[in-house]
Parts: sequence; C-alpha cells; structure tokens
Amino acid sequence: MDGGNYIKEGRDSAKSTCLIFSPREDDEVGSLGRYLKLFAKHKVNLLHIESRSSARTVDNYEFMVECAPGGDLAAVIETLRDQCGYFSIISRNHKDNLGTVPWFPGRIRDLDRFANQILSYGSELDSDHPGFTDTVYRARRKYFADIAYHYKHGEPIPRVDYTPAETATWGVVFRKLTSMYPKYACREHNHVFPLLIENCGYREDNIPQLEDISNFLKDCTGFTLRPVAGLLSSRDFLAGLAFRVFHSTQYIRHSSKPLYTPEPDVCHEVLGHVPLFADPAFAQFSQVIGLASLGAPDEYIEKLATCFWFTVEFGLCRQNGELKAYGAGLLSSYGELEYSLSDKPELRPFDPAKTALQKYPITEYQPVYFVAEDFEDAKEKMIKFAQTIPRKFGVRYDPYTQSVNIIDSKHQIEDLVTNVNQEVQLLMDALKKLKD
Amino acid sequence: MDGGNYIKEGRDSAKSTCLIFSPREDDEVGSLGRYLKLFAKHKVNLLHIESRSSARTVDNYEFMVECAPGGDLAAVIETLRDQCGYFSIISRNHKDNLGTVPWFPGRIRDLDRFANQILSYGSELDSDHPGFTDTVYRARRKYFADIAYHYKHGEPIPRVDYTPAETATWGVVFRKLTSMYPKYACREHNHVFPLLIENCGYREDNIPQLEDISNFLKDCTGFTLRPVAGLLSSRDFLAGLAFRVFHSTQYIRHSSKPLYTPEPDVCHEVLGHVPLFADPAFAQFSQVIGLASLGAPDEYIEKLATCFWFTVEFGLCRQNGELKAYGAGLLSSYGELEYSLSDKPELRPFDPAKTALQKYPITEYQPVYFVAEDFEDAKEKMIKFAQTIPRKFGVRYDPYTQSVNIIDSKHQIEDLVTNVNQEVQLLMDALKKLKD
Amino acid sequence: MDGGNYIKEGRDSAKSTCLIFSPREDDEVGSLGRYLKLFAKHKVNLLHIESRSSARTVDNYEFMVECAPGGDLAAVIETLRDQCGYFSIISRNHKDNLGTVPWFPGRIRDLDRFANQILSYGSELDSDHPGFTDTVYRARRKYFADIAYHYKHGEPIPRVDYTPAETATWGVVFRKLTSMYPKYACREHNHVFPLLIENCGYREDNIPQLEDISNFLKDCTGFTLRPVAGLLSSRDFLAGLAFRVFHSTQYIRHSSKPLYTPEPDVCHEVLGHVPLFADPAFAQFSQVIGLASLGAPDEYIEKLATCFWFTVEFGLCRQNGELKAYGAGLLSSYGELEYSLSDKPELRPFDPAKTALQKYPITEYQPVYFVAEDFEDAKEKMIKFAQTIPRKFGVRYDPYTQSVNIIDSKHQIEDLVTNVNQEVQLLMDALKKLKD
Amino acid sequence: MDGGNYIKEGRDSAKSTCLIFSPREDDEVGSLGRYLKLFAKHKVNLLHIESRSSARTVDNYEFMVECAPGGDLAAVIETLRDQCGYFSIISRNHKDNLGTVPWFPGRIRDLDRFANQILSYGSELDSDHPGFTDTVYRARRKYFADIAYHYKHGEPIPRVDYTPAETATWGVVFRKLTSMYPKYACREHNHVFPLLIENCGYREDNIPQLEDISNFLKDCTGFTLRPVAGLLSSRDFLAGLAFRVFHSTQYIRHSSKPLYTPEPDVCHEVLGHVPLFADPAFAQFSQVIGLASLGAPDEYIEKLATCFWFTVEFGLCRQNGELKAYGAGLLSSYGELEYSLSDKPELRPFDPAKTALQKYPITEYQPVYFVAEDFEDAKEKMIKFAQTIPRKFGVRYDPYTQSVNIIDSKHQIEDLVTNVNQEVQLLMDALKKLKD
Repeated sequence: MDGGNYIKEGRDSAKSTCLIFSPREDDEVGSLGRYLKLFAKHKVNLLHIESRSSARTVDNYEFMVECAPGGDLAAVIETLRDQCGYFSIISRNHKDNLGTVPWFPGRIRDLDRFANQILSYGSELDSDHPGFTDTVYRARRKYFADIAYHYKHGEPIPRVDYTPAETATWGVVFRKLTSMYPKYACREHNHVFPLLIENCGYREDNIPQLEDISNFLKDCTGFTLRPVAGLLSSRDFLAGLAFRVFHSTQYIRHSSKPLYTPEPDVCHEVLGHVPLFADPAFAQFSQVIGLASLGAPDEYIEKLATCFWFTVEFGLCRQNGELKAYGAGLLSSYGELEYSLSDKPELRPFDPAKTALQKYPITEYQPVYFVAEDFEDAKEKMIKFAQTIPRKFGVRYDPYTQSVNIIDSKHQIEDLVTNVNQEVQLLMDALKKLKD
Repeated sequence: MDGGNYIKEGRDSAKSTCLIFSPREDDEVGSLGRYLKLFAKHKVNLLHIESRSSARTVDNYEFMVECAPGGDLAAVIETLRDQCGYFSIISRNHKDNLGTVPWFPGRIRDLDRFANQILSYGSELDSDHPGFTDTVYRARRKYFADIAYHYKHGEPIPRVDYTPAETATWGVVFRKLTSMYPKYACREHNHVFPLLIENCGYREDNIPQLEDISNFLKDCTGFTLRPVAGLLSSRDFLAGLAFRVFHSTQYIRHSSKPLYTPEPDVCHEVLGHVPLFADPAFAQFSQVIGLASLGAPDEYIEKLATCFWFTVEFGLCRQNGELKAYGAGLLSSYGELEYSLSDKPELRPFDPAKTALQKYPITEYQPVYFVAEDFEDAKEKMIKFAQTIPRKFGVRYDPYTQSVNIIDSKHQIEDLVTNVNQEVQLLMDALKKLKD
Repeated sequence: MDGGNYIKEGRDSAKSTCLIFSPREDDEVGSLGRYLKLFAKHKVNLLHIESRSSARTVDNYEFMVECAPGGDLAAVIETLRDQCGYFSIISRNHKDNLGTVPWFPGRIRDLDRFANQILSYGSELDSDHPGFTDTVYRARRKYFADIAYHYKHGEPIPRVDYTPAETATWGVVFRKLTSMYPKYACREHNHVFPLLIENCGYREDNIPQLEDISNFLKDCTGFTLRPVAGLLSSRDFLAGLAFRVFHSTQYIRHSSKPLYTPEPDVCHEVLGHVPLFADPAFAQFSQVIGLASLGAPDEYIEKLATCFWFTVEFGLCRQNGELKAYGAGLLSSYGELEYSLSDKPELRPFDPAKTALQKYPITEYQPVYFVAEDFEDAKEKMIKFAQTIPRKFGVRYDPYTQSVNIIDSKHQIEDLVTNVNQEVQLLMDALKKLKD
Repeated sequence: MDGGNYIKEGRDSAKSTCLIFSPREDDEVGSLGRYLKLFAKHKVNLLHIESRSSARTVDNYEFMVECAPGGDLAAVIETLRDQCGYFSIISRNHKDNLGTVPWFPGRIRDLDRFANQILSYGSELDSDHPGFTDTVYRARRKYFADIAYHYKHGEPIPRVDYTPAETATWGVVFRKLTSMYPKYACREHNHVFPLLIENCGYREDNIPQLEDISNFLKDCTGFTLRPVAGLLSSRDFLAGLAFRVFHSTQYIRHSSKPLYTPEPDVCHEVLGHVPLFADPAFAQFSQVIGLASLGAPDEYIEKLATCFWFTVEFGLCRQNGELKAYGAGLLSSYGELEYSLSDKPELRPFDPAKTALQKYPITEYQPVYFVAEDFEDAKEKMIKFAQTIPRKFGVRYDPYTQSVNIIDSKHQIEDLVTNVNQEVQLLMDALKKLKD
C-alpha cells in the first residue's frame, strides 16, 4: 500500500515484546540457558530467541528474546535490568510502558511481519469505490492481496498475467502521462524513464512486472519493491524505507475510470514512484525519512508521514529556474500535475520543521505545495530535523547485513569513526588517481 | 575452492571483451541504437548489453557491451574512443592490449561466470590423492562439483545429506580441533564458535550446512558463501572477496585419513575460515584484499594472493602478549596449529610490501609466519599497500547495489565527499545522544 | 570603525593591482628576474615583490607582484597569461576588468593597508553630532584617530588614559546596561562577562584597555582587536573578520548624551561586541562571514554586510524557549535592547538568503529582527549561503600562517583531504581515551 | 639549544604544581574566591591564577592555579578533588605523585619559562671545546646566551652584528655545504633554499638574522624560532615543537675549526634545520612529535627524542629511487653528509616503535640511519606511535589561541567532530569549484 493518501496510524495487531540484553562482561553465551529459566519461572512464553555478538562490548554476546503477551513479564524485566550489562525493550505496547521503545524491524526479513499488521485488507472496497459492485474486479483484488499476503523476503515477486482490460486501462494512463512528463516532470524522472522502457518493459501495451522493476532498482540504488496486501500503518510503511524497501500495490484501478483512482494502484507506483527511487540522491532522502521513524514517538511518526506526503507524494522542486514535479501523487495524476504547476496553489519552501505541521486534504487537489531546492538539500534538512526527534540512541543502517543498528555505546561510535576514516582513505586514493 | 594452498594464476577460459562508454553530454539513451549498428558493421557479436545511468556526468547514460571474440573489434574501439565522452575497456585479454584493464566482475551476480573459468574440476583427483581409487568417493566428489557448477547467485545453497562415513570423518576432525581452540585460536575465533554451535548446527555428529552458515554470516558481516566447482584462478578467487563472497568447498576429505587433506574441504572452510568471516574487522580486512585485486596487473595479483596466504590462510596475531592463530590453514590443521605456535618457525611482522614477496611451500609446514597486530591495523596496512598498485582509478564497493564502482571522475569524488559528510552527520547525532 | 550602522561600500583609495603567477613546471625561482624585465619593458612600476613556494604544484614557485597604476599593464598581463602555468589577478579596479578578482588581504599584516583606505577620518563629525562644537572632544577624537592610523599589525594597542569625564560617561552606560544583561542578554554574553571583569578590568570606574581585551580574546578564540581610524568600506571591514580581526573604535561618545551615540564607540565595542567574540561558536560564525566576503562580487558584499547587520549587530536568538539578544547594537543600547525583546518588532527566522535582502533603517529602532537557533546552526547556514557566492575558488584560512589560501587546484584539495584525515586520527585517539 | 646531539633528560629546576579545576555545574566564576581561601587555609602560596571558560561543560568555568612548593598541598588537593566537577594536576614533580601529569606548557607564552629550566648555560664550555681558552669567544658566547635568557614570546629576536671573523667562518661552511646540496640534499631542502637566499639574506658574506628567518618560516608553515640560552631538557625541547616553535642557537662555532663544532651553532640551525621547517609536511611531522611528548611518561620522552634524532637530525629519505638526506645533522656536516649516503652505514626503514629503541653515539658518525618514505608517511607512522603512549587524554593544538587543549570529555569530542564537519564542508565547496 502506498505511503501517500492512505497511510494512517495503525492499531497494533501484534502484542509481542522484544527484550535485548547482554550478560555482564565475564558471562558467556552459555548463560542464555540460565536466562531462559527465568522466563519459564515467570510463565512468559517466547516466540523467538536469537543469540549474537554484541556490538557494544568487545567479546560479549547479546540476546534478543521476543515474548508473547501473558505471564509476569514485569518480574522478568526487573530481574534482567538488574543482572544485565545492557538491557532494552522494544515493544508495540510502548504507550503503556515507560522507557519502552516503539517496535521496529531490526532486519530486512522482519518486514515479513507487516503482513499480519495491515490495517485493512486490499480486497475490502468502500461503497463509493468504482469497482464496488464489480465481482470480477473484487476477485481480482483478492488475488493480488493474497499474493502479497504470502510473500516472504528474498522470494521473487510473482509475475502477474494482466488481463486485456487491465492492460487497456494502463495504456490510457501511460499515454496521457508520458505526453506530459517532458514539460512537467523533474529532470531525474525524465532521465530514468528511457531506462525503464529499455530495461523493464514500460510500454503502452504492457504493464511492467514488479519483479523486473525491483531488480532494476536494486541495481540502481539498492531499493527494492515488496507487494503489500493492504493498508499499512504509517509507522510500518516508513520503517520499510529505512531498509530501502518500498511497499507497492500490484493491482490496477477499475477500468470504468482510467484516469481516476481513490487509492494507489500499480500505475501510481510504477509511473509515479519508481523512476525517482532509481535516483541515488532521492533514494538517500527517502531512506533518511525511514531511519528517522524507527522507534520515534507517535507524534513524530505523524510529522514524518506529513513530510513524506509533501515530498515523495506531492513534492515540487525548482530546476534551472523552472518549477517541476517529483512527487508520485502528481506524476501519476493527469489533472493535479497540471494544476500543481499552474499559478493556483500556494507554494512554500520545504522546511521539515514547518512542513511537518501542515494539514492536508486527501480527497482533493492540495492547496499548498512545498518546493525543494534539490534532493541533496532536502536530505540534509531531513537529517537535521531527524536530530530533533527525542530518541535515546542513534540509528544506522548496515547495508551489508541489511539490518538497523541502535547506536548507544562508545564502542559503536568508535566504529563509526573508523568507518569515516576508511572512507577518507578511499577518497584520498581516488583523488590521487584523478587526472589533473 | 579455497584461496589457500591451491590458488594459481588462471588460464582465461572466456575471451570476451567489455566496453563501457558514454555518449557526449547532449546525446541520449536512444543513441545506443546508433552504436549497435557500429558493432554490426564491424561484425562484432554481442553477448550482453546494458544501459544505465552514468555516475560520471549528470544526466548522462552509460552503456556496457560485452563482445564475443571475432570481428574487427579494433575498428569499433577506435571509433568509440573518438565519439564518446567516456570510454574504457575491461577484458580477459588484457595482456595483449595496451590500456586494457584486466576483467573483473562488476556486480555480485557476475560471479556466476566463474563456474566456466575454473582451472580444474573438483572431481579430478591426483594419483596420490587418498581417494584416487575409491569410486564411491569419486562419484561423491562429482556430485558436489555439479551442485556448485549449476549454482546461481541468489539461490539457496543446496543442502546435502552427508553419509554416516562422512559425518564420522567430520567428527574426528571436530573433536580434535575444538579441544585445541581454547589454547591456540585467536580471541575472535573463540568468541564466534559458540554462536556457530547455537545457530548453525556445529556438532560432532553433524556437518553444518553451507546455506545455514552463509545466512548466519550474512547477518553478522554480510559475508556469504558460494559453492565452488573446482580450482579458481587467484584473480577470480580474490575478486569474490571484494563482494564479501567466499568460495567454499562442500565435500569432505577421504575417510581413510581424517586428519589429512591435500586440498581444502568442508572441514577447512567451516572450522578454519567461517568463524573469522563473522568478525567485522576481519571481514573488512578480507574485502580490502579483494578490492585491491580488481583490475590489478598480474604481478600484483600474485602479491595479493601471497598476502592472503600469510594472513587469511596462515596468519598469526598477538593478543594480550600471547601468540595466537587466526589463519584457516592453521585452525583446520591439528599438526600445523601446534607447530606454528611453537618456537620452531620464524616469525616476522606483517607488512604487506614485504610479505607479498615471501616465497612459500604448499605441501609442508610453513617455515615463516607473519604476525599481525590486530585486524584493524592489518586492514590499514593493506589499504596503504593497495594504494601502491598501479591502477588508473579508485574502486569502491556499493553494498546497496552489490556492485563495484570504478571511480575516475570528479563527479564521483564529490559523491564520496557527500558520503563522508553524511557519515559525519550520523556520528555527530550518535555522539550527542551518548550519555556523558 | 564598527561593522554595524556605519559600513558602506567604499571608494577605492588604492589603485594597485596584484598579479600572482607561477612559472611552468621546469622553470625556477631564478626566473623571477626574467619576469621583472618584462615589467620594466612595459614601464609598470612595482610596489611589492614576493617569491614563495607554490601550493598548486609540487616543487614549483609562485610570485606575487603588486603593480602601481600606470604603464602598459595589459601587455604584461597578456604575456604572463601566455607564459605561466598559473596566473591570477587581484585588484581594487576589479569593476573594469573582466576576470579580475576584487582585492583582498592575503596575510594578516595586509590589514595595515586599510588605514589608507578609510572612507572618512574618525575626527570628522557631522553637524548634528553631539560633540560637533566641542573643541576638546574634537581634539580627543583626532588623538584616537591618529593612534589607529599609525597602528601596525603585531604592535600592542596603545593604552589610553581616559579623562575623568570619559570615565564618568562610561560609568553611566556600564551601570545601566549591566543591570539589564541578566534578563535580556544571551547565555554566552552572561557567561563571559564575569571573566571580562576578572581579567580585563571591566568596572564602572574604569574603561578597559583594548590591548588587555585583545589579549584576552586571543586566548579564548584567537580573535584580536585592531584600532580603526575611521569608516571602513564593508569589503575591508568584513575581510578583517576572515582573519579573526575586529576593527574597533577606542574613543567614547560625547558626555552630553551618555545613553546615545550616532556611531559606534568604545562602549558599543567593549560591552556589545567583545563578550561574544570570546565564544568559540560565535567566533567561527563571524569568521565564516569574513571568509565568504573575500573576492566576492560587490552585490554579495552588500548581502553579507546585511547578514552581519542582522546577526552580529542586531541578532536575537532563542534559548530555552526565551528570546535573548546577542547583537552588539542591542547589547549596547539601553532602549533598543528592551524594545527588541518586547512584542513590538516583527521576528523572522535567520535565513541568510532571505536576511541578505532585507532593507533596514540605520537611525532608528529596527522594525524587523532575525532570530537564530544557535551559533552553530547560524554558522552552518552561512557556510551554505557562502557556497552560492559566484567565486571561482575555495577559500581557506590557515591560522598557522595567518594567511588566506585560494584553493583552485587538485593538489590543494588533496591537502584538504590529508587534513581531514589527520583530524579524524585525532578524533579516534581522543575517543579511545574517553572513559566509557 | 638544538634538539640533536645535545638533548638530555632534565633536572627539574622549577618545582611548582598546577591545579586545573572546575566547580560543579551550578557554581559560578565567583566561587574562585571561596577556593582561594582554601589555599590560604592550608598555607599554599600561589604563583599564578587564571580563570577561564571550561571546554568540558557548557556554561561552566575553569581555574588554573599554580602553587609554589610548601604548605599542605595534599590537603588542598583532597578537598578540591572532592568538591570539583573536574580536577587535574600537572606538575614537574610528577615522579613522586600518583595520577599527576608531567608538566607541559599550555600556551605558547609558557615557553618563556624554559629559560629558567636550562640544564647548562650557553657560555659554559667544556675543556676540550675549541674556544675554551679564547676569552673573546667566551665573552661572545655569554652575549648570545644573555640575549636568549631575556627573550620573551612576542618580541622580535634581537639582530646581531656578527664580527668579520664570525662571518668568515660562516662563509667557509656556507660555500662547502651549498656545493654539496644539489647532489645530497632532499628535494624539499633544495626547493626552499633559493627562497631563503631571496628572502632572508642567505649569502656567503652574510649570516642571516634569526628574526628574518623566523618571519619567513611563520609565513610558510607557522614555525617560529626562539633563541635559547643553553641546554634544554628533551621534554622541554620537544614541547616547543608542539607549538611549532624551534629553539635555536644564535652563536657560531669557533673560527679555529670552521668545519667542526661539538654542539649545534647557527650554521647547523640555519643551513640544516631551517629549510625543512619551511616545508608543510615536515612541519606537521615535527609538530606531531612535539604533541606526542606533552605529558608523556619519562621513558616515552626518551623514545621520542630518539625518533627526533633519527629523523629531524639524522634522517634519510628515498626520492625517485635515490637516497637523500633531510636530517639537519647531516645537512650541516660536510663529512657525515657524504658518509651517510655512501654504502658504509647500515640503513633501516623508519618505524617509530623500533627506531625509538635504537642506541646511538653522539660524538661520531652514526653507524645506522633510518630511511623515511616521505614526510606524509613518516607523520602517519608517528601519529600511530603516539597513540600507544600511555596518557589519559588526547591532545590538540589550537593554532588560533596558540594553546594546547587536553581532550578528556565528551563535549570536546563533539567539538572535534564539528570541526571535521566544517573541514568537510570546505572540501565539498572547493571540489565543486575545481574545473573538471
């Protein structure tokens, strides 16, 4: 499901609690056994156990234990806090628990859990949806939702045989929008589009396959697509971006209104979002929003979702003195694309602290748009804004292990400096080799 | 096939030539068509064509065209050099061609090509091999070689049902070596070993599966294993390390001599190499050797292979004043492990420029070992050494796209600086959040 | 003379032209003789000649030749451009000469030249000046102007015996303002003030000596004061900041109106400016403005002077949610200090690109003030803004040699990276030594 | 006095103890009064008191109090340790006091104290000194020693009228050595020499003035010369280098043996040392040795002095495959210069950890020389070596305030990162402006 019009704060479907803890220094990996007895004693059931090396202390281990609701978890927590050198709690029940960090995925495969946390299934249509009474369309929507529901990280995204009717709908949208891009779309969109035609089967008579696009994006920036079975909470949707994963619909709008859709569909994703995710600076910008969201308080999730709305969905930018669109909501909407670049809407400079507070309608054209200088600048502004989010740790994505590191120890900061040092070495070497 | 005793300079099995070129600035992606006619005109057959965004000039494209031998390639090259804003050649035929960079994989999936470039197939045994006359063993070796030969990047490594005899052989080795590790192995090896028991089924009565180990390593450092069908050239083997990919055997030594093997086998890989690749600093060190090798002249490949030999295979280090082994050749050899830490061999400090020139026997215990301070220090020394390799470009691994970037333009260097800048921002944030 | 109310675009008093050039690589220092003949041949008189090592090419030299007006300089320039590996022109006559960089001081001792470039001498009073008809006061003003006029870099600033009347005037101002600071002044001002009392003789009955203050500031941040004989152009005044030199008046306002002055006086400098220059972040911010101005086009000098006006002179900031004053024009004006923090004026966030365009009155209270987050943030914003100034080179201040380097070669950029590298090494060491 | 042949471990002439302390956070500058009573109560006399802003805690102050020997200092220390947020002791009596850091100068003007700490006065000659019985020469030596003894930081170095005999001696040395430099001296020495002729009066018939040289060096690298009245301890001599200050003799050897001197003289300094201090990389290298020495334990002072001996005094380097001299002891000695580059002495690569342990004779030619790659490499090696010195803090030189900062708090490390960040910004800007 798209992060645009439709992201909302989620009800927590899963109620598990993750405890991460390290024994004191002279303890060993074998000590996990001893800790497990503690859980048993207090009748806490465990859903998942992981032992690994600690990044915080040399030669120490770390355990991640996911507990089912029930039992005297409070007693376990009290004991662990007392006995452990390092201890932290990450939980979906963060609202009721002081000092608890809101849950977020630690590894890219943890995104598999979102399927059980969707706010509404992709086949549930509102009564005013153009396809509400079309049983064929509804069956088709269920088919797509089921694909996504069963999808697991690492698998290829199932290829879909789109029907002639679906392809015809795509064709109408494709023809209309591609005629507008040269004039309205930003430089990056127009730069990537020919590569999508060349490499991913973007054609008027062919709906491109998510799997082909995902592989193409992976080669460009490391972004990948994941099919989504329904509406994700803002928190979950944004968390995907931290891993450079974009949750994408695969179905297409109802054929009765080819130039309208009340929700994101494959046209919106594939024509609006995808070209931008192939741009390195835009990819970094998107990931910065994602990383900012991990473990952030609820009110900041809303702020970040608003920033996402006014950039990735409805962003404008200025290029060579001309206003251009880079937001997917604009680049996939024939009407609003033209409107947004007319003199009708109000324009303001993108400034996350202010943009984050702007209210917006979701069923009509935006009265206000925010204009970015360029993606590099927007990224730097987001990084600064992220630093104002109250969070007791730094967050770093490790693209080698495709996991998120919580930075809260001196030892990890030393690793960051070592990393900077290595990058500077690389820079020195490359510079020396550059011809004068 | 292991990078240790058995890596040799390879005969070039594939004779293709890769041309990478960008049109001048005002040209477009469509211009590929025009270039393709050029190849046709000169009767050069193309094996692979790729169009992508150029990292060297804003808004420009880049083409990678792989040419089969034959036709008037020289004429094509001359024309392209003349017409293109950027042009470079990467070829296995580098020896005969001035200004040609020796071929290396650009993306992790290019490692699939190594299967066709192996120097000898894994089922070919020398006449003095303990299993030479054992037809069952030979069939088994062919079975393993075939698995590897057909393996493609991204697939799970096939799980193998080891026979009771194989497991028994493993048991002998496992028992013997694990009893020695606490005294002889380096800190990092002993730290990771319990996690391998816990997570990957390391047990006396079970040969762990490469797939489980590969997944575990991926979570630790991003290293992965690839089954290998036979002997790789040093150039190919080292190139794998640039991608944090280790080419591993899957078969086991002959049961007649459980404590001896004339070549690397699964015991060597799994007990010797794997624990170290789970250590972040060692993983970086190994990758630095790999990156140094890409496109390096032949004599430097030999130097790097020698450094590999005296570190990853036969390295010693000093920890808390005591000498310890971290080389896989030692950690998988009961006899040499003890010998190497006795007072018999000569010890010298690890210094790549000198170590690279040291001759070594491959069928007996080493007369000389090199001692590293620690992996961080060894890495820095390798980086410095790598800077002395004559190469007209810098090389950077992008873990997001799992590809290698050739850095030879000002624009890319600006990207490196932007990257350093972002890391420094992250550092500032993390430091602020660190408790005083 | 103060950089506040009174800085204006200057008439160019000196008309000399500086040529900086390097022989081609295989030429030598001795070649200067040959070049000098060229100047003689074209009847160009030389005011100053300097030979030094070039930072742009290894083992090469560089000459800086300052030419008096007259002779056929154009012919000399044409020849040098042709014969030299490096050539640039810095001149006060930049308006008439394409490709000429506006003159700026290269070494701290070059600030001595400003004395001959002042726009009006400090003893010239307007007819509405409170001391216009007071001959004693006018003589006194001449005395102070003469001190400054003859001052040379490196000398101590002459100590002045202030008269009892002057000290009494100071006392009125001191008493009034110090009673207001706890409530109105920013944290940094209040933090430094006790140190000025302790170390520099700030007392109601004593006007502190510039020399003592300059020494104190030198120990805090490296800022120093220089007495100024009259009104400097904006370009010259700002250039001083690049060297962490603040041009300061030494006389005091007329005793008839102790709480009013139509121009900066020692009260303004010493109570308003000095405390802030003792703060490291503020010192950096001020220097960034100065560095941005060097060689900038005239319209950017005006923009930077406007930024200076709305920060160093009339800046507000928010601290712990409260508005505070840090601008010297406020901190030295009893009336405007109170007004600026009332609800009467309009407040806007400090944003150099916009602030730079704001018009302002110089004889009445400001209708608009700009509010900074903190000096670190203001500095970063100024750095970004400086990057938009059209200038063909980077500029770096070398505090060891107290000189400004023009960065316009790959070799110098390598030096910058080496420098970053050394700073990172230092950081790694300090971090390791920090207690956990 | 030269840092070469003649530096020895010093007897501590001054026995004062410096206490540096900060009140707890909510305390104020006024609290100094309270602390002073404590010293009075325990009868500790104070030599110097300084109040300043603390770099360790925002808005806090720091006091530096220098105590004369006598009184119950132990009681004062105990109380302060208890009451203060920050407390440290720096003392010349460090050997007897646990946790006490050996004294070192904090500001460049503290070097004035060395005059009282010299090990032997410059007019004391050994009985085998060529000038021992020459009363005119001895009077002359006293004249030079007195100049140095009364010299204070910031003053110009007094110009000396050398006698015709002295100038004749100089002429012999100058003629001989300058004829050898093109063949034997390193590139940097030969590069700078013509500039010294041009700018500092280096001529056969003129002994150049230290003041002119010091000003020239200040413009090149920020190094300055200080006249020295006699033999400094190694600790003091090396500390000067941390401030880029070189302690230099001003007298000349006895005229009876113009090509021999048992101690450093103006020929040695001016022909041997000075040209190298004009080279930026060499200047950094020298400063790194100096910074490493500050507060280091005695045995490391000896190691650093040995490194100094084998580099700045007797160092060789390889340039374009040829061995060249850069050590001042070689470049000022006709005989040893030739010998050192012959095949007679033993050569080893410069490696601080090993070089530091090498014994050496001071009255004859060196049997062993150490060869550096280049100054950049030597500097990096020294930085690494310095990191192994047991010291509880990092050390940073601030060239703006010409003072040394002890880095031992998170807040200061944040400042270092901010600093790296600013350097990276500068780099980005300069790179953008570099022509492609």
